[in-house]
Amino acid sequence: MLSPPPRERGHMTGRDLDEVVSTVRQRVTPSEEERRRLQRTADELISEAEAAMDDLGIEADVIQVGSTARGTWVSGDRDIDVFVRFDPDRPRAELERCGLEIGKRVLPDGREEYAEHPYVTGQRDGFDVDLVPCYRVESATEIESAVDRTPFHNEYLAARITADVADDVRLFKQFLKGIRAYGSDLRTRGFSGYLSELLVLEYGGFEAVLDAASDWHPPVRLDPEDHGTTTFDDPLVVIDPTDPERNVAAVVAAENVARLQHHARAFLADPTESRFFAEEPDSLSKRAVRNHLERRDTTPLAVRFQPPDIVEDQLYPQLRRSLDGLHTGLDQHGFEVLRGTVLADTTAVLFVELSVASRPAVERHEGPPVHVGEHAEEFLSKYAETNAYGPFIDADRYVVERERSVTTAREFVEERLFEVSLGAQVETALAEDYDVLTGADVASLAPEFGTELARYFNPTA
Amino acid sequence: MLSPPPRERGHMTGRDLDEVVSTVRQRVTPSEEERRRLQRTADELISEAEAAMDDLGIEADVIQVGSTARGTWVSGDRDIDVFVRFDPDRPRAELERCGLEIGKRVLPDGREEYAEHPYVTGQRDGFDVDLVPCYRVESATEIESAVDRTPFHNEYLAARITADVADDVRLFKQFLKGIRAYGSDLRTRGFSGYLSELLVLEYGGFEAVLDAASDWHPPVRLDPEDHGTTTFDDPLVVIDPTDPERNVAAVVAAENVARLQHHARAFLADPTESRFFAEEPDSLSKRAVRNHLERRDTTPLAVRFQPPDIVEDQLYPQLRRSLDGLHTGLDQHGFEVLRGTVLADTTAVLFVELSVASRPAVERHEGPPVHVGEHAEEFLSKYAETNAYGPFIDADRYVVERERSVTTAREFVEERLFEVSLGAQVETALAEDYDVLTGADVASLAPEFGTELARYFNPTA
Repeated sequence: MLSPPPRERGHMTGRDLDEVVSTVRQRVTPSEEERRRLQRTADELISEAEAAMDDLGIEADVIQVGSTARGTWVSGDRDIDVFVRFDPDRPRAELERCGLEIGKRVLPDGREEYAEHPYVTGQRDGFDVDLVPCYRVESATEIESAVDRTPFHNEYLAARITADVADDVRLFKQFLKGIRAYGSDLRTRGFSGYLSELLVLEYGGFEAVLDAASDWHPPVRLDPEDHGTTTFDDPLVVIDPTDPERNVAAVVAAENVARLQHHARAFLADPTESRFFAEEPDSLSKRAVRNHLERRDTTPLAVRFQPPDIVEDQLYPQLRRSLDGLHTGLDQHGFEVLRGTVLADTTAVLFVELSVASRPAVERHEGPPVHVGEHAEEFLSKYAETNAYGPFIDADRYVVERERSVTTAREFVEERLFEVSLGAQVETALAEDYDVLTGADVASLAPEFGTELARYFNPTA
Repeated sequence: MLSPPPRERGHMTGRDLDEVVSTVRQRVTPSEEERRRLQRTADELISEAEAAMDDLGIEADVIQVGSTARGTWVSGDRDIDVFVRFDPDRPRAELERCGLEIGKRVLPDGREEYAEHPYVTGQRDGFDVDLVPCYRVESATEIESAVDRTPFHNEYLAARITADVADDVRLFKQFLKGIRAYGSDLRTRGFSGYLSELLVLEYGGFEAVLDAASDWHPPVRLDPEDHGTTTFDDPLVVIDPTDPERNVAAVVAAENVARLQHHARAFLADPTESRFFAEEPDSLSKRAVRNHLERRDTTPLAVRFQPPDIVEDQLYPQLRRSLDGLHTGLDQHGFEVLRGTVLADTTAVLFVELSVASRPAVERHEGPPVHVGEHAEEFLSKYAETNAYGPFIDADRYVVERERSVTTAREFVEERLFEVSLGAQVETALAEDYDVLTGADVASLAPEFGTELARYFNPTA
């Protein structure tokens, strides 16, 4: 379960922490060989993109961005980001068309993806390459799409990240990976690479970030360039040095802020390498799932369906919204939810564990206070002819015990699922078809989602 | 179930109502013969009390009080109240001793009862007689015990209640009986005779009271002598004409105020004799109880014990307090109560019907927000070594799923009953011994409490 509680910092010696950090630093720093190989590939990609532009008669410039451009990548990361910058006067349709054409020439086996506009993603020499068209705007506040901002980030950091800072950035990124809080994708809702670099710059180093995070009292607001013009509701606010109106940490979930705080404290109190390197839990077998459910004595319920054909950044928010809707709907009908999660792979699942899965045939329904004449009359007429118990008077109100429309959570999910608030494309997918699994049948999720279920049934900070 | 909803008053003709009222008036007005017999007995009792006083050398005066003294009793009522008034200088112990001695002479087969101080109650010629000692104080504000007030009430009303008013008082009392709201005993918590008479005097007649009650918006405050000096929290406040600091309606439960309002409206809209004469429901058989429970699909639970040897006015408030405590305790442990009631005869019962009677083996327990360092540390230490799930982080907090201490309502009642707030003597009685009945076993209450259960399972306004 959970790592030991944080102890007084005075208990540990500086050497422990230094030793651990130094060992990890060696593991995360790319070797000269790795750097050379990566740079060679990046240079090739840029040359080929330029050649393709010449060939196609396209005017633009090509730059490398991201952590591999700034030397802040963690050894083993394999992302090369190449941006093709077009004049902002170019119509968007033309940018998209040209961008894709260049992308396909450079990465003939690549595939088209779509963020705010299309780009090409593929493989080269074992690296994952994104070839992205954008506009060369004057400043980050004039961007037309989110990718136009990236070159500004790159420029800002490149001017400030020294080799020492890059070392600490790698440590911090690895720490975030170890605690499962790294990545601004909408499945993780964690810390982006850019955000990690800004935090290390702001506090001055890896340990300094952990020290600061240990004492954070969210909401936390940082503004490196002291130019922020907007307030945000997020638990962590880091004003973008290249855009006074943007919170770089907008995507970071409260849970990930808390996780960083927890692990920062725990690590400073008891530095271990293992905190940098999260191990995947062993996948649960069907039998293990059944054992957990038996021990917990809850009623599990899974809604399983074919996920809509959308990217993860669209899928996960919709799954979460759907789970929230299901949770609320179940609670409102008296089926108390203990916990739940979303699962997605070749199938998608809204999974909840219920504390209360069935209800009596009747439910209490309060009417108006007896003294409110006109409402009282309506209420009495409404229930006089039904088979409800009452109306009777309890304290100063009319009350009936009327027949419940649904008496089991399963029935609710089978018959009333579309009354709850669902993500739009998830709703469409569910409208096609879905299975409802309850009780021990839920164990049949184990082959596909054993790892996720291991994490669910062994929750840690 | 419920009588038909009130209709527009315009729908009924005055004659309907007048006819109904006139028929009921005949039924509730004591015949000359009844009056004569009652007065003869009362006169005898007074003479005998006076003779006993002479005999014992006790100085006091004897008066008849209550509705039979004022001619406002409902035909068939059989209560004669005789008060023996002592000089207020007499020590209380002497008053009590002398009062009982006179009482025992007049009612040799009577028995001692105890309200605020002891009195004798017994039978004579088929009438129920209370022989009560009190002090002859100067005014109702100087009373030493509640009974000292009665002669003032008697005097106030005697001066104001004409034969016509007495007629309407009887109608109103009978109406309150019919809707089960008559009686200031602490089982009923309804309208006392004195309160009924004051209301008829205040509004000017039986129909006028119903008209007014139809439109009440509690809290309602009446002050016939316009001398009230205190505010009260009760839904109905009628300042005692003989005591500016007292609410005559203090004992009336909100439910009974509401019940009067409901039935006043319903009667005025559709006058029927039946509303004056509540029929006892047929006692439920065991099978009928089981059928109700099956239809409702709730989990019934009864705590059955030997009632403490106290009067009903002490017993019912304690039973209700105990039921409230049980209700709260069950709810707090996740065992949701749909409804409940108290039953008392040769045994006493706290009865609840549960919507949720069992819970999983684990329960969610929220810890502090992660950023509150010192509390977080305590929480983590506390749960690190237990077999709880977690601690894990949910939003900005630590959470564990820990083992529940009780997982069924039955277990709660068997093992934790004395953790809930119970009436003092009920608690003592429960400490002696109690049974817990659940499920179909609850039907075994039917022989003793069939009528009460009939009312419970067929609740009406």
